[in-house]
Amino acid sequence: MTKPHEKPAIRWCLECAYDGTLFSGWQSQPSGNGVQDFIERRLETIFRIPVRIHGSGRTDAGVHARGQVFHFDADWPYAPDKMRVALGVGVPRTIQIKRVKRVGSEFHARFSAIGKRYIYRIYEGDADPFTRPFVWCLERPRRLDLKLMEEAAVNLRGQHDFTAFAADNGTELENPVRDLRRLEIKSQGQSLRLAFEANGFLYKMVRSLTGALVAAGEGKLRPDDIKQLLAGGQRTARVATAPPQGLFLGKVFY
Amino acid sequence: MTKPHEKPAIRWCLECAYDGTLFSGWQSQPSGNGVQDFIERRLETIFRIPVRIHGSGRTDAGVHARGQVFHFDADWPYAPDKMRVALGVGVPRTIQIKRVKRVGSEFHARFSAIGKRYIYRIYEGDADPFTRPFVWCLERPRRLDLKLMEEAAVNLRGQHDFTAFAADNGTELENPVRDLRRLEIKSQGQSLRLAFEANGFLYKMVRSLTGALVAAGEGKLRPDDIKQLLAGGQRTARVATAPPQGLFLGKVFY
Repeated sequence: MTKPHEKPAIRWCLECAYDGTLFSGWQSQPSGNGVQDFIERRLETIFRIPVRIHGSGRTDAGVHARGQVFHFDADWPYAPDKMRVALGVGVPRTIQIKRVKRVGSEFHARFSAIGKRYIYRIYEGDADPFTRPFVWCLERPRRLDLKLMEEAAVNLRGQHDFTAFAADNGTELENPVRDLRRLEIKSQGQSLRLAFEANGFLYKMVRSLTGALVAAGEGKLRPDDIKQLLAGGQRTARVATAPPQGLFLGKVFY
Repeated sequence: MTKPHEKPAIRWCLECAYDGTLFSGWQSQPSGNGVQDFIERRLETIFRIPVRIHGSGRTDAGVHARGQVFHFDADWPYAPDKMRVALGVGVPRTIQIKRVKRVGSEFHARFSAIGKRYIYRIYEGDADPFTRPFVWCLERPRRLDLKLMEEAAVNLRGQHDFTAFAADNGTELENPVRDLRRLEIKSQGQSLRLAFEANGFLYKMVRSLTGALVAAGEGKLRPDDIKQLLAGGQRTARVATAPPQGLFLGKVFY
């Protein structure tokens, strides 16, 4: 119950982008170097009380975001866009506050999400210094066979137990079935862009799927191997985890 | 004269790219933080003697390069591409060694150059964190009038005394006439790309021309003002210098 003299705080939903290169991931860290830490410190300055934010999910150290979503509760009597500006000027330039909107108190950045999109970018060859921080650079040009990758993708799309393409995150076993609604491989010159959409992702799932797709493109994993790995239901050394810097959290769906 | 037991060293011409964000410019610095310092330190490790390199010209702190050129003399009995790799792995990831070739001893990266191309990138609005380090971000969207910019450009192209669009670099007065052979303004969405080609550029000339072109696009400098400034032959407060992070040394012509 809200006491008569207290107005219930308003819930705010924000979207942000960040270059993850120098952060210790999204989540708050003892070092204070999580993206969340920088945002919370700035909010504390603005609101003069500690403000806890809730993200749609974590991103690992070195992973980027174009559309990370988080929410928090606070009273803010001004226009939402003024909050965007006030928050934006007080966080590192590698974080951009893109949108602020007022939402109902039932909204939760994590639990209300019905899906996510991740993008993984690969570069075949020696990428220039402006591209390197944002791609997995296969420096000894290995020509990936797109047809083989597409055949592997056919076996990955849809609803599966993705344990073979995830890492143990040390938490209690959750249901490892996910619906990979979209897996798209686009090639342009020396760049390869993988898009993944699912109702949710297991820990390191996108980077593991990417590692497997690259192995498929090199002829090291055949489409049948993918089927067997899915059916086996456990992570093996046959699947490598792609490095973090090629990965972007693209969009959270609500 | 070369003594009989000494083979004259071979002259090597190299092309490199760098993200200038964290360097103190191209030139060697007491701090050791010039791009040149990192390359020379690596060459000393490779050749086991100090190697002095000669660039096509300086770039200021924060300015980037896609095609900076330098030369040095050294004996290297292996394929040129092996030098590219050996040098590339020992410099920061923000420097890329693109090409190595053997040249005649008459070649000089600076004095043999017959022209240069610079690119300046502008973004109208709040650029994302992946673009911000490489553009001049006009955060309060000021709509630049391209027609006005083009009219200003007409008066800048060709051979002029560009003193009004340069900064004093503290050295002896040199001939301030340059031939601006190309000045191209391309707009795509919120991005604006300015390309400059000349037989040579005065100190901070591209950033000053960019500052003037933006002022022209905002209606603050009229085409006639540009003419008068050129004729006046001195730098005034009417011309602002654009920030370094939007500037790229694109190509050196020989």
